[in-house]
Amino acid sequence: RINADRLWDSLMEMARIGPGVAGGNNRQTLTDADGEGRALFKKWCEEAGLEMGLDAMGTMFARREGTDPDALPVYVGSHLDTQPTGGKYDGVLGVLGGLEVIRSLNDLGIRTKHPIVVTNWTNEEGTRFAPAMLASGVFAGQHDLEWAYDRTDASGKRFGDELERIGWKGDEEVGQRRMKAFFELHIEQGPILEDEAIDIGVVTHGQGLWWLQVTLTGRDSHTGSTPMPKRRNAGLGMARVTELVHEVAMDYQPDAVGAIGHVEVHPNSRNVIPGKAVFTIDIRSPSEKVLNEMRARIEAGIATICDALDIAFEVEPVGHFDPVTFDEGCVRAVRGAAERLGYSHRNIVSGAGHDACWINRVAPTAMVMCPCVDGLSHNEAEEISREWAQAGADVLFHAVVETAEI
Amino acid sequence: RINADRLWDSLMEMARIGPGVAGGNNRQTLTDADGEGRALFKKWCEEAGLEMGLDAMGTMFARREGTDPDALPVYVGSHLDTQPTGGKYDGVLGVLGGLEVIRSLNDLGIRTKHPIVVTNWTNEEGTRFAPAMLASGVFAGQHDLEWAYDRTDASGKRFGDELERIGWKGDEEVGQRRMKAFFELHIEQGPILEDEAIDIGVVTHGQGLWWLQVTLTGRDSHTGSTPMPKRRNAGLGMARVTELVHEVAMDYQPDAVGAIGHVEVHPNSRNVIPGKAVFTIDIRSPSEKVLNEMRARIEAGIATICDALDIAFEVEPVGHFDPVTFDEGCVRAVRGAAERLGYSHRNIVSGAGHDACWINRVAPTAMVMCPCVDGLSHNEAEEISREWAQAGADVLFHAVVETAEI
Ligand SMILES: NC(=O)NCCC(=O)O
Ligand SMILES: NC(=O)NCCC(=O)O
Repeated sequence: RINADRLWDSLMEMARIGPGVAGGNNRQTLTDADGEGRALFKKWCEEAGLEMGLDAMGTMFARREGTDPDALPVYVGSHLDTQPTGGKYDGVLGVLGGLEVIRSLNDLGIRTKHPIVVTNWTNEEGTRFAPAMLASGVFAGQHDLEWAYDRTDASGKRFGDELERIGWKGDEEVGQRRMKAFFELHIEQGPILEDEAIDIGVVTHGQGLWWLQVTLTGRDSHTGSTPMPKRRNAGLGMARVTELVHEVAMDYQPDAVGAIGHVEVHPNSRNVIPGKAVFTIDIRSPSEKVLNEMRARIEAGIATICDALDIAFEVEPVGHFDPVTFDEGCVRAVRGAAERLGYSHRNIVSGAGHDACWINRVAPTAMVMCPCVDGLSHNEAEEISREWAQAGADVLFHAVVETAEI
Repeated sequence: RINADRLWDSLMEMARIGPGVAGGNNRQTLTDADGEGRALFKKWCEEAGLEMGLDAMGTMFARREGTDPDALPVYVGSHLDTQPTGGKYDGVLGVLGGLEVIRSLNDLGIRTKHPIVVTNWTNEEGTRFAPAMLASGVFAGQHDLEWAYDRTDASGKRFGDELERIGWKGDEEVGQRRMKAFFELHIEQGPILEDEAIDIGVVTHGQGLWWLQVTLTGRDSHTGSTPMPKRRNAGLGMARVTELVHEVAMDYQPDAVGAIGHVEVHPNSRNVIPGKAVFTIDIRSPSEKVLNEMRARIEAGIATICDALDIAFEVEPVGHFDPVTFDEGCVRAVRGAAERLGYSHRNIVSGAGHDACWINRVAPTAMVMCPCVDGLSHNEAEEISREWAQAGADVLFHAVVETAEI
């Protein structure tokens, strides 16, 4: 068993960096706070005797040598970046859970045959720079490095420049590491485990996703003196698309979800009919067929809506991953660990995207999930219990050590 | 007749200050650009022999003495501030049209019995600091001076502090001036005059308005892992209210308009269901009864929408004026001037709010309108012809001079 108090203390110490406004965190990717979080993690890794690698996407790789240094390492980790109003556990639990695996091995004086590498993947959240899971996506060959560097935030700053600015751009080529396996511990971010009072989610699949950035172009004009029939209201178009996305998702739920989280209206003045609206649709399903049907219905609906309002539209995909089926062997290792340790468990589909979803394309991969209060995440009030964290980290420990072989 | 070339040259020179991104202007109230625009206007006033007064709201009063200095002055003017993506004429034509009245009187060597005062009212547009027509509202006793100073912009800066910062806070008590009459020349900002090929709108009435700032509070949560039935989506609520406002306005049009121009969503991240949305509803009608009915229907609708989505709401009025009936005598002076000069004219209701709407409460007031291309305003592409400007300023000249008595 891992040391639950030490894990919890580390979670709380990390949460002091980039505090939010309501008890959570704002440690968005490549901000100064992200840099501080990385430095603290590095210090802890060095104290645990690990050697830190850093690739050109800023992903951190802290290695504990195996008895057979030529054996492929087992990787374990997640991300330290957060949403602008994020929680203390989303991502962080997976990184510090990985570190706790190492610390526990050190306590017990156990050497594994395969090296173990704890990772912190850069820009998992995707808020500041879309898409999400950017560094793991480059690692898995899904995106080009230069393309990733060219992603910009809302103020026009480039990912590549910001990575350099905070001092965490490494020399190592991205994606050249080979892995025996990758394990990621994460909070569920949904309500199923808590509702059913189950300790461990054995993640067998992950939902697929489309992020569709929509730009509607009407015409700015005066709210008071423009007659109703003369309006070309891009804000009204956005409202109708918001309702459409909701309706389509409701038609397919529980096998789908859909919403619009990011919205900009121009010129955003009380007495100007919006001439332009830019927003991002987020639709997801574990079924590729459903996901494609949803996208097709939404794109057709946007055309109809815009036609009626005499506004132009563009739809640009800014994020995508296919539904994921995790590696059978790794999933079995997670389930076996839960069983051995006497934790209740069930199979579960990840509603969120995770770095594990990309790494699954280049290495055998699985995930461990633990419950979170009321299924709430991407909210500063995100909460878990110490017992849930312990169960998740215990299962992670056993699955990793079994795979790394004693 | 006024000197149309000089008027046009001055309009173009003012438009160089606070240039927009698409040929128009961004000279928002109490910005540095607003300060520069004021300085240019002051210089022109001094060159025309006028004496500048400045009140505690920053409103500028440039006075040409009358032959009877004790006679009540005739006021003429509008505003120099613009929308963030505003046109070159909205407001500016009325101020520089007033200045052209003075310059023409100087050319002709005409003295009037009553003094004439050209005014630039502070913060007519209301984008940076709500409500619109703020300084004329304080002048007319509708708002308290201290309340006006406490209005804040989106970044939290106070109106009073910003007025001081740009150096245009005067000592003169607001609203102590008495007026024989007030005349305001303005572009129509709607399509009626151009559609009917009419030179002059004789403004008999103005629409009333409500600005209702709505705050919807749901719960931030993950777009991927939150099941559809568990969502409390404030962005979806905003979409439904946007549609509601449109429907209600359509039911009453052409006697009403309604839209939402200003929108904020929190935390505004692609993968977070909005937990909060703040936006401002703009509804208008020339009929007080219609305006009140619209407001009641919209407030009831908001309650129903929020109930269905399990979100909380607050509705705060942040701007209001009653429908206006302008002074019969002043309206007659405008109509008579158009007639004498041989310009085609018709009665018209102002769709927009104007400083004249407030001043009408404390002095006999009327407005002159000229057409604008395609009825387009609050858009950088706002355009008028030199001939339209000339006709408007000619009518203003005759109405003012008749009222000021030679
Ligand atoms: N786990 C998580 O919140 N990832 C962010 C990417 C997503 O939106 O699913
Ligand atoms: N004329 C004008 O655009 N005024 C701004 C106030 C309003 O929204 O009507």
